[in-house]
Amino acid sequence: MEKANLYKNMNIYLDLAVEAHDLLRGQVESEVSGIKRQTETLPEATVTTITITNAQGEKELGRPQGNYITIDAPAIKDNNYEAHKKIAKILAKHLGKLFDFREDTSLLIVGLGNWQATPDALGPRVVEKILVTRHLFHYTPEEMEGQMRKVSAISPGVLGLTGIETAEIIRGLVEHVKPDYVIAIDALAAGALERIGTTIQLADTGINPGSGIGNHRKGLNEQTLGCKVIAIGVPTVVNAAVIAHKTIEELFGQIETEPGLANFYNAQNEKALMKVMQKALSPFQNNLMVTPKEIDDLIEQTAKIIANSINMSVHPGISASNFETYLH
Amino acid sequence: MEKANLYKNMNIYLDLAVEAHDLLRGQVESEVSGIKRQTETLPEATVTTITITNAQGEKELGRPQGNYITIDAPAIKDNNYEAHKKIAKILAKHLGKLFDFREDTSLLIVGLGNWQATPDALGPRVVEKILVTRHLFHYTPEEMEGQMRKVSAISPGVLGLTGIETAEIIRGLVEHVKPDYVIAIDALAAGALERIGTTIQLADTGINPGSGIGNHRKGLNEQTLGCKVIAIGVPTVVNAAVIAHKTIEELFGQIETEPGLANFYNAQNEKALMKVMQKALSPFQNNLMVTPKEIDDLIEQTAKIIANSINMSVHPGISASNFETYLH
Amino acid sequence: MEKANLYKNMNIYLDLAVEAHDLLRGQVESEVSGIKRQTETLPEATVTTITITNAQGEKELGRPQGNYITIDAPAIKDNNYEAHKKIAKILAKHLGKLFDFREDTSLLIVGLGNWQATPDALGPRVVEKILVTRHLFHYTPEEMEGQMRKVSAISPGVLGLTGIETAEIIRGLVEHVKPDYVIAIDALAAGALERIGTTIQLADTGINPGSGIGNHRKGLNEQTLGCKVIAIGVPTVVNAAVIAHKTIEELFGQIETEPGLANFYNAQNEKALMKVMQKALSPFQNNLMVTPKEIDDLIEQTAKIIANSINMSVHPGISASNFETYLH
Amino acid sequence: MEKANLYKNMNIYLDLAVEAHDLLRGQVESEVSGIKRQTETLPEATVTTITITNAQGEKELGRPQGNYITIDAPAIKDNNYEAHKKIAKILAKHLGKLFDFREDTSLLIVGLGNWQATPDALGPRVVEKILVTRHLFHYTPEEMEGQMRKVSAISPGVLGLTGIETAEIIRGLVEHVKPDYVIAIDALAAGALERIGTTIQLADTGINPGSGIGNHRKGLNEQTLGCKVIAIGVPTVVNAAVIAHKTIEELFGQIETEPGLANFYNAQNEKALMKVMQKALSPFQNNLMVTPKEIDDLIEQTAKIIANSINMSVHPGISASNFETYLH
Repeated sequence: MEKANLYKNMNIYLDLAVEAHDLLRGQVESEVSGIKRQTETLPEATVTTITITNAQGEKELGRPQGNYITIDAPAIKDNNYEAHKKIAKILAKHLGKLFDFREDTSLLIVGLGNWQATPDALGPRVVEKILVTRHLFHYTPEEMEGQMRKVSAISPGVLGLTGIETAEIIRGLVEHVKPDYVIAIDALAAGALERIGTTIQLADTGINPGSGIGNHRKGLNEQTLGCKVIAIGVPTVVNAAVIAHKTIEELFGQIETEPGLANFYNAQNEKALMKVMQKALSPFQNNLMVTPKEIDDLIEQTAKIIANSINMSVHPGISASNFETYLH
Repeated sequence: MEKANLYKNMNIYLDLAVEAHDLLRGQVESEVSGIKRQTETLPEATVTTITITNAQGEKELGRPQGNYITIDAPAIKDNNYEAHKKIAKILAKHLGKLFDFREDTSLLIVGLGNWQATPDALGPRVVEKILVTRHLFHYTPEEMEGQMRKVSAISPGVLGLTGIETAEIIRGLVEHVKPDYVIAIDALAAGALERIGTTIQLADTGINPGSGIGNHRKGLNEQTLGCKVIAIGVPTVVNAAVIAHKTIEELFGQIETEPGLANFYNAQNEKALMKVMQKALSPFQNNLMVTPKEIDDLIEQTAKIIANSINMSVHPGISASNFETYLH
Repeated sequence: MEKANLYKNMNIYLDLAVEAHDLLRGQVESEVSGIKRQTETLPEATVTTITITNAQGEKELGRPQGNYITIDAPAIKDNNYEAHKKIAKILAKHLGKLFDFREDTSLLIVGLGNWQATPDALGPRVVEKILVTRHLFHYTPEEMEGQMRKVSAISPGVLGLTGIETAEIIRGLVEHVKPDYVIAIDALAAGALERIGTTIQLADTGINPGSGIGNHRKGLNEQTLGCKVIAIGVPTVVNAAVIAHKTIEELFGQIETEPGLANFYNAQNEKALMKVMQKALSPFQNNLMVTPKEIDDLIEQTAKIIANSINMSVHPGISASNFETYLH
Repeated sequence: MEKANLYKNMNIYLDLAVEAHDLLRGQVESEVSGIKRQTETLPEATVTTITITNAQGEKELGRPQGNYITIDAPAIKDNNYEAHKKIAKILAKHLGKLFDFREDTSLLIVGLGNWQATPDALGPRVVEKILVTRHLFHYTPEEMEGQMRKVSAISPGVLGLTGIETAEIIRGLVEHVKPDYVIAIDALAAGALERIGTTIQLADTGINPGSGIGNHRKGLNEQTLGCKVIAIGVPTVVNAAVIAHKTIEELFGQIETEPGLANFYNAQNEKALMKVMQKALSPFQNNLMVTPKEIDDLIEQTAKIIANSINMSVHPGISASNFETYLH
């Protein structure tokens, strides 16, 4: 009755690499070769970098090789501008490390998700706040030079609104705009409520839906787009199955002093627990999401932090010193 | 370990009278005097009317005396215009029974909730679709007469946006507009996932937050507003604690063949289960809501059904025969 | 002091072919070879079809060869659902004539314009109301067959929001989606206030910005996209210079009984009048638009008419008889 | 053929006191007793204060007694954050002078106008950015004290959306909220294009629609609300009749060297010119507005400046030194 298997069977995918790694660690005895983990503790945030270095790591963690940086900053969900500024600077610093800028580097910012559904609207809300400059290079190239980089931005919508796979839209666009980098922002599903409003994940491997490896067709990554793809993700929902599962765990945790029960719990197979969870989530099953009531404010605050980190790390004319100038 | 007590201790309030009544029935052996329940089965919907007739009924159900009509129509969540038209007509018929119109009756439609948060935006979305006519009586009274009634409409926002209790805003407005009826539309929290996208509740007792009786100050009802208040509510979320509780119930239901376990479960006091649920919902506890992923479409469809029921039942010039004319 | 020259010098481009043709007729004595004009009078609308048949017609009218159908229906701006239904059917009929459907024909609907600026938001508002079906063919192909055609839809935004030429975005998309037809909806600038809220233009030549011929790079047409492009345009603004010019015309029209003045007016060269107009429009000059105060309602009503015409003419399962079913 | 009379006959009302005063000055030879005008020139803005001190001034300027402060800052329409910060501070300073704060002073911010129509959406967009605090005094009074004042905020919509006069809504609200000050923000119509995106008007006399004096019923002022009302207005449109009139003026100005014409112009009566203008604006006449194409950006920028001036001048905890902290 291992959590990792249960989640797999329930089709619960953990978007955060750090959560997937925690799950894996609970499952295997020793460290997996091909996965490195490093933690940096700052006053405002804990930054965990997981690096997948070979095919075994890829397979074990269900993600392509590359870097997954998790910024864990509980103050994201506070209404505290000074703290947000510091978190934005931390994000900007780590974002900056992923770029290798030339004078004329160009970037396309992609806001994934559905602007009509609050918890999924993070990407489009970030795009609204991005300093778009690409078109200005036609009109006033000398004013832009050295101050700004070529930035374009789009929120392509979701399959239900357009009838077109988002990856198709972006691929077509990249062939014409030919950016050096794509930065894709997306709302994520977390494996724990504590992640909501506290975590930002940065990855240099792009967006790789589903199992992450194998099915590359729908991904936004260097292989499909022909340019570096940096993904910024923020957990905004938890699958309701996670709540159901955590309830079961807490229940048996509570009663573990009862030897009979502990035996009983250990004897349960995954199938029985899945059936419990499926009934508890009927008739929507895996199609339910859990959000805190104040999700709209959380999305807006996080969108500001991310948009400003991007604006700051991308344009040389916006140095950290006058950063607040652009936090609007 | 009764569900009714557990919910009370967890501060889980069931907005639907029919659910509160089901809970009560599970708790008490005989029917409660002062509560009548009647069910009508139609091809498209089951309509359950609960009538609270005296103070005992009031106390037992935690709601003021009056009628609570629940329309249970699973087709609300289908994308089926013909079915929606039929459901709208059923709602309009029951709505019509609550009015006692004169030639010059006037109505104020109030869209409660937060337009920025999808599951809470039902009220404002209905108001957008209401045929507002009150101001036209100044300009073309003869064209309106006999065709239209005086309808005004407002979405007052929520406390976090305005800093003002919604009831205060509406009270001030009613004193100036002096409507004969207020119709208040609100998104509700249900006690079961099955209620989402399938149920509309109609009540002639207004909106009575919290325990429903006693604390009238914040309510929208005849006592506070001085005019009849009809409430239309639609479950759009379920409290996450409901999911946690249902998981526990399903778990023990699953394993009830084990006599030892059944004994164990029955021996648990509410406190232990509450602790399990609180840990499972940490750090948000009662402040979490569960919605299906397609909530935005659900809200839009339901808003159309309700707005058109109101337009149809209120304006004599819009008879059922040419109803579809206005369903846009 | 010819109006046609004055407009050209002031960079006032008339989006409506019928207006450009009227202007041309005022300028040249005889009919231009290569331009045909036909008028059909219906109870609800006058339909004028201008066909450009050769290079001379192209040059004279500043537009590529093809058909330009203008539906002139004053009831568009009335709040009259029955009239709107009839106008939508007229538009659907003419739209239908431009298609040559196979069983599996696919279409991409493009909503041009800026959703943040009311008069320019027509295209995005139409797209919101389109029945998008392309993705459903993956899931339930047998249900769709014979009832629905493959329809996808997108609102690409404007240069100032994305930093990317709209034509580039659409080109990339068309290469991936490979539709048989693109239908592009756009808000137009008219040469007369009477056109606002009364006129819909349909063209089988696509969108050809600026002079219309020559500069094809930014156009959305068969040449640039490799598929048929149908343009639906609705005048929502008038350039403020048109108001200034009409004032001058009315002034001299008023006083033409004064022989001295008539002589004076005739003696004025374009330069003098342009200077007058430029001063009157300072400091914004050509960058000003004139709209009626009720523009938001007009846009919404027109978007409904157009979206429903498209839904009806494109999907065989939505016949004219049950058209109203979908007008929502 | 005096402009002042012509405007009166055309029902063109100039919302800006400074424009009304300029018009009056052109009409009367000497200064009007009862109207004082003072000008302060700053690097970023020219501030003109017009004070109406008696009934004669009231009558001549068509406005109640009080102070009308016009901040003329061309940089409002530039995309220049540093300049906006300075302009916001100037506005905050003048706003601050109009208040007489006690420890527990409370304010209600009212965003007038229609959020669905871009040029009229200024008020609602300001309200979205206001720091609303009134409800927090219930929860954490000690944290708020000395740092924040009680601020509530509402956007009541417009007559066409609600069916209720805005003044009625606000009156009802004020009776319940009992604020010491109402600050009402509204988009204005200017008499000159140069005013758009360059001007903010502040008045301590509230909002007085139409002729300004006499018809107090619909006004938002101390007399109708029972508390001080401060109005902040920004010109976002020009009546199209203003364009038509300016065209005529420029035309005759251009040709004034022709003595015959000058005579002719002077001989024209208002009726003839009105007829010209009415024909030029047919079929919409007075119901047309002129806006620059970039109006959406202008509204957003101005809303930020105003919201931050209010936040800064109202809350003691937000001093000028850390002003930028809140400019978001």
